Amino acid sequence: MSYQRFFEDAVDTLRRERRYRTFAEIERAADRFPHAVWHTPDGPRDIVIWCSNDYLGMGCHEAVVEAMCATARKAGAGAGGTRNISGNSHAVVELERELADLHGKEAGLVFTSGYVSNQTGISTLARLIPDCLVLSDALNHNSMIEGVRQAGRDKQVFRHNDLAHLEELLKAAGDRPKLIVFESVYSMDGDVAPIGAICDLAKKYDAMTYLDEVHAVGMYGPRGGGIAERDGVMHRVDVIEGTLGKAFGVVGGYITGKAAVMDAVRSYAPGFIFTTALPPAVAAAAAASVRHLKASAGERTRQHAQVAKVKAALDAAGLPQMVTDTHIVPVMVGDATLCKAASDLLLNEHGIYIQPINYPTVPRGTERLRITPGPFHDDALVARLADALVDVWTRLGLAFVTRAEAAE
Amino acid sequence: MSYQRFFEDAVDTLRRERRYRTFAEIERAADRFPHAVWHTPDGPRDIVIWCSNDYLGMGCHEAVVEAMCATARKAGAGAGGTRNISGNSHAVVELERELADLHGKEAGLVFTSGYVSNQTGISTLARLIPDCLVLSDALNHNSMIEGVRQAGRDKQVFRHNDLAHLEELLKAAGDRPKLIVFESVYSMDGDVAPIGAICDLAKKYDAMTYLDEVHAVGMYGPRGGGIAERDGVMHRVDVIEGTLGKAFGVVGGYITGKAAVMDAVRSYAPGFIFTTALPPAVAAAAAASVRHLKASAGERTRQHAQVAKVKAALDAAGLPQMVTDTHIVPVMVGDATLCKAASDLLLNEHGIYIQPINYPTVPRGTERLRITPGPFHDDALVARLADALVDVWTRLGLAFVTRAEAAE
Repeated sequence: MSYQRFFEDAVDTLRRERRYRTFAEIERAADRFPHAVWHTPDGPRDIVIWCSNDYLGMGCHEAVVEAMCATARKAGAGAGGTRNISGNSHAVVELERELADLHGKEAGLVFTSGYVSNQTGISTLARLIPDCLVLSDALNHNSMIEGVRQAGRDKQVFRHNDLAHLEELLKAAGDRPKLIVFESVYSMDGDVAPIGAICDLAKKYDAMTYLDEVHAVGMYGPRGGGIAERDGVMHRVDVIEGTLGKAFGVVGGYITGKAAVMDAVRSYAPGFIFTTALPPAVAAAAAASVRHLKASAGERTRQHAQVAKVKAALDAAGLPQMVTDTHIVPVMVGDATLCKAASDLLLNEHGIYIQPINYPTVPRGTERLRITPGPFHDDALVARLADALVDVWTRLGLAFVTRAEAAE
Repeated sequence: MSYQRFFEDAVDTLRRERRYRTFAEIERAADRFPHAVWHTPDGPRDIVIWCSNDYLGMGCHEAVVEAMCATARKAGAGAGGTRNISGNSHAVVELERELADLHGKEAGLVFTSGYVSNQTGISTLARLIPDCLVLSDALNHNSMIEGVRQAGRDKQVFRHNDLAHLEELLKAAGDRPKLIVFESVYSMDGDVAPIGAICDLAKKYDAMTYLDEVHAVGMYGPRGGGIAERDGVMHRVDVIEGTLGKAFGVVGGYITGKAAVMDAVRSYAPGFIFTTALPPAVAAAAAASVRHLKASAGERTRQHAQVAKVKAALDAAGLPQMVTDTHIVPVMVGDATLCKAASDLLLNEHGIYIQPINYPTVPRGTERLRITPGPFHDDALVARLADALVDVWTRLGLAFVTRAEAAE
């Protein structure tokens, strides 16, 4: 039997469907982010990253980098074990305190990634609630879907951000235990959940709430606590999940909530128990980032300003962006091949790196370029981006938005 | 409804069954490992770690720490995105080359942890093989069990290291595709799989093989390729999985194998696709460690020598150790409460940190202290360890092995 053939066939399917992904090899330059070096077969080239999830450039912040270096020199490069077996470092305990404080919760629990925190966090929570029904937003991230699936509980999917549909399902569920699982900022459309209204429904129908704030922490709210903090409803959400790998600029994920809930997940979640802890150096870097963004609003203010400038520049140029209230700026292409071609042209001709977003990350027909302006994209870079997009749109014959359409 | 009560009850169950875990808060000291600081409510105390999975102390090696610092300063503290979206750093690509070379394979693929590499690696492989039957060793790690479970394929568990039972199951399976999933060194008993003989069976019955070497990489084989390298059978195993968080001293996991297989996992594994990449600084530190241990046998030689000394010292003192051929030295207690008490006495009275290993990590009745001597445990520390264990054994009234029993 040719096992290799199975794998070759699977990859061929992706190629046929134009979904095969190639990874650009990038070397970020900490001292001049968002500039980076792109390693090509023909040698290195200077580029500007416009699709980073290091939304505020905190991964390159001196306080963050130096916390990593100082702790690595003091305590080594790794944790040396699981949290239970010799890997429970002082640094990771301090980080959990910092995160609990960020979200106004009793306790926090750190995982190796945001993906794992959702996957093992949601599945463990749902398993610990007898006869739990999980209510999950239709656009939830893959890590949440996997968490719900692995819980093995009954689940119902409510239409994206649709309060009426959610209420209908809650009402129909009767008085069994219910867990509502949703995000604050949805990463591909950049839209925002009505968190307060969902909490109202949770209260009315006696459900528990689990909110993923990975695309919001650090960036919204007076201390970077996320959309729930901005909206003044943070205390009403039972479990808030976040990441250390996006606006905080490092790597890792976490949940926060009541001490009893965190203790139960800590004690039962296989993806927490049986894995090596985050290195103290990583935990210290993340804690430095969280601490900095609690006190400093400068990065957020500057990010929001540059996002507004990008949106205005794209509007002025007639580029078909999806309207959002967040820092995520999707520019619609609507075709996988053209989306890849646009991305390639931007990189090859303009030194602008924006990865194409194709199926299955977004539905077919809604392929897009997803732009994430940050505080370090200055006005000159914004102008260059708009010009480059116009050039690419023209060369590929992509549609511009007319003044009349834009006014509709 | 009191959701909190569900979680409190779950934790109470653990307390009642004496399975509730408390984490000691440890601060490793990179310049004097295995010494560390234990943060207690009464203040810091100096201790010696005897249960680290940083088996060779590489997490504290200057080349590893400095690689982390240099790369953090150059490229920042995080990757800034998934592998597909701006997170595919030069450092992680180089690390994958290093790992492929370590195991003599065409390609490697890095994950955020060893846990994730097994979980999403095994489930993806098994899903990509039509009608796959998974044959899984009875003592496989939780991460492999979860990977097999999440594959949703038929599975059969063969008795631990039992070639006759494995052959029986292979024969009964007929000519459908089969994936054999097993470990080289089993972490809690410290015993070793007959890798070559399993490869013989795989060849005879046309099965694919997946080998977890997490407790062996860096420590066995002329270049630290693991037990398969030591036994000269590395080329016969289809997929070799390993960790960067144990003997390599950092964090992260990986698989290696044929390029087509790695490409398929890269393209289909949700736990790989939808997660932030390892920071370049972490990847560079891990690569430095792998490179060092390929060229330097000193750490391995010294580890093996100190392991032999510990085993001899425990034998001489009549302590009931499980006989192993590896660096893992289990000392049997056989009772959860006594095992915890022994660990507490060692830490409180002797400043020796060895975490108790209780159910469900090991079967009830086989509770144990799991000792992992490394190259930095010098002869004086070995003597102190044996004395401390004798004191604890005496105070708790635990059984010593008589000369007659030892001779049996």
